[in-house]
Amino acid sequence: METLNIIKIGGNIIDDEVLLNDFITSISTLNDPFILVHGGGKLATDLAEKLNIPQQLIDGRRVTNAETLKIATMVYAGFINKTIVALLQKNSINSIGLSGADGNLIHAKKRKNNEIDYGFVGDFSVENVNTSFLELLLNNGLTPVICAITHDKNGQLLNTNADSIASNIASNLATSFEIKLVYCFEKKGVLSNPEDDDSVIESLDFDTFQDLKNKGIINKGMLPKIENGFQSLENGVKEIGVINAKNCVNFISKNNNEGTRIT
Amino acid sequence: METLNIIKIGGNIIDDEVLLNDFITSISTLNDPFILVHGGGKLATDLAEKLNIPQQLIDGRRVTNAETLKIATMVYAGFINKTIVALLQKNSINSIGLSGADGNLIHAKKRKNNEIDYGFVGDFSVENVNTSFLELLLNNGLTPVICAITHDKNGQLLNTNADSIASNIASNLATSFEIKLVYCFEKKGVLSNPEDDDSVIESLDFDTFQDLKNKGIINKGMLPKIENGFQSLENGVKEIGVINAKNCVNFISKNNNEGTRIT
Repeated sequence: METLNIIKIGGNIIDDEVLLNDFITSISTLNDPFILVHGGGKLATDLAEKLNIPQQLIDGRRVTNAETLKIATMVYAGFINKTIVALLQKNSINSIGLSGADGNLIHAKKRKNNEIDYGFVGDFSVENVNTSFLELLLNNGLTPVICAITHDKNGQLLNTNADSIASNIASNLATSFEIKLVYCFEKKGVLSNPEDDDSVIESLDFDTFQDLKNKGIINKGMLPKIENGFQSLENGVKEIGVINAKNCVNFISKNNNEGTRIT
Repeated sequence: METLNIIKIGGNIIDDEVLLNDFITSISTLNDPFILVHGGGKLATDLAEKLNIPQQLIDGRRVTNAETLKIATMVYAGFINKTIVALLQKNSINSIGLSGADGNLIHAKKRKNNEIDYGFVGDFSVENVNTSFLELLLNNGLTPVICAITHDKNGQLLNTNADSIASNIASNLATSFEIKLVYCFEKKGVLSNPEDDDSVIESLDFDTFQDLKNKGIINKGMLPKIENGFQSLENGVKEIGVINAKNCVNFISKNNNEGTRIT
């Protein structure tokens, strides 16, 4: 089977023009095709602040009201997505930017309101990914660049977790490709001691993860990456890494062992 | 040859949620495939005002500095483009939103600075449209929704006139399809008396246009539509209309003669 890299990029790499440019230049040298999934960094929060739109957080999760969704759509699907596409084109990678609405790539459902109403937030499963559309693009030499906006097929756009998008797409394509799924961010990997940036766990199995999660050592934004990662492993994804963006190409090419492998 | 409709939508239709929804619902009933090209309405200007980014106009043309380009990319390629794509998906049209950077659809050049520097504004010719990419999408049942942002293949996004995009794409595809090109906006058509909304010129030939242009009756934003229209006619586009958005489907289906035909 052909290898396909699914690369999630987030954190401060996206907010920093120089880091982003370096990252795009480096992944443009990969031999195998890839799909890039990106989050939004702090740009959406900054724009909301400038426009005096208050951001509500419940248990650390953002509530997406109509105004916040508009900002997310502008920043994620507009500015960040097209900036990345143009940088890839500069590096001779024929990329195409997509939200989940484009080509009906991801059909999500508005999160059910039990006790908390998160607003226009979408969830979806592996089977809600439009496999044939992605294969059409990949088979024609196009590199999808996917932002964290989906739709409900009833005209509503929805804010969606970018880690889940990367993981569900990886799982969805795992029967057609040998998938390497890498979550790139600003840290060196999953840390056993959050105070020590060098305490990278080289190989993280499910029992160790549960233990570190229960102890509160792995928490917040790291949880969806790892929980989704284990799910993808079960679904047939071959390799999964949580790594520093600067080490992405080395990790994929197995030039070194830096970063965390989920095993 | 198969018929292909190329529909440009602009003006206050885009700013008004109800008008836009009605328009998208109506064009979703068209029998033949279509490409939708959209401008930005007043949303970009409004956002620039809210963010206190001064908008400089020279001879009625906007100067696109770096901050204004960022806003245009957010509003055109992000909010408006994805809103339209989601509405089309709701109406069972499998649409895909594109800037000129996506799939290298439009390779533009930054406008040369002679006396006036318009900033990050891009111009391009008929041959800079990626025909095979558009045909790939159309042949696979996808409906392109194209915003007025292009790129220079060197990592720079560029603000580009949406009327020129519609016209150049129409000309580019005229050898493969029987093209109907329609510019939809809020007026009933090209007016012989700007004070009288009912003074619609049913059939506009080049000599009449030159005369009305010299008299200053046809001016401002109407000029690029009509000048591009005549260019497309020369390039083999079969029918060209300047019409009210509400009359788009009737005009294409020839159910009535409302609006202006460029002949």
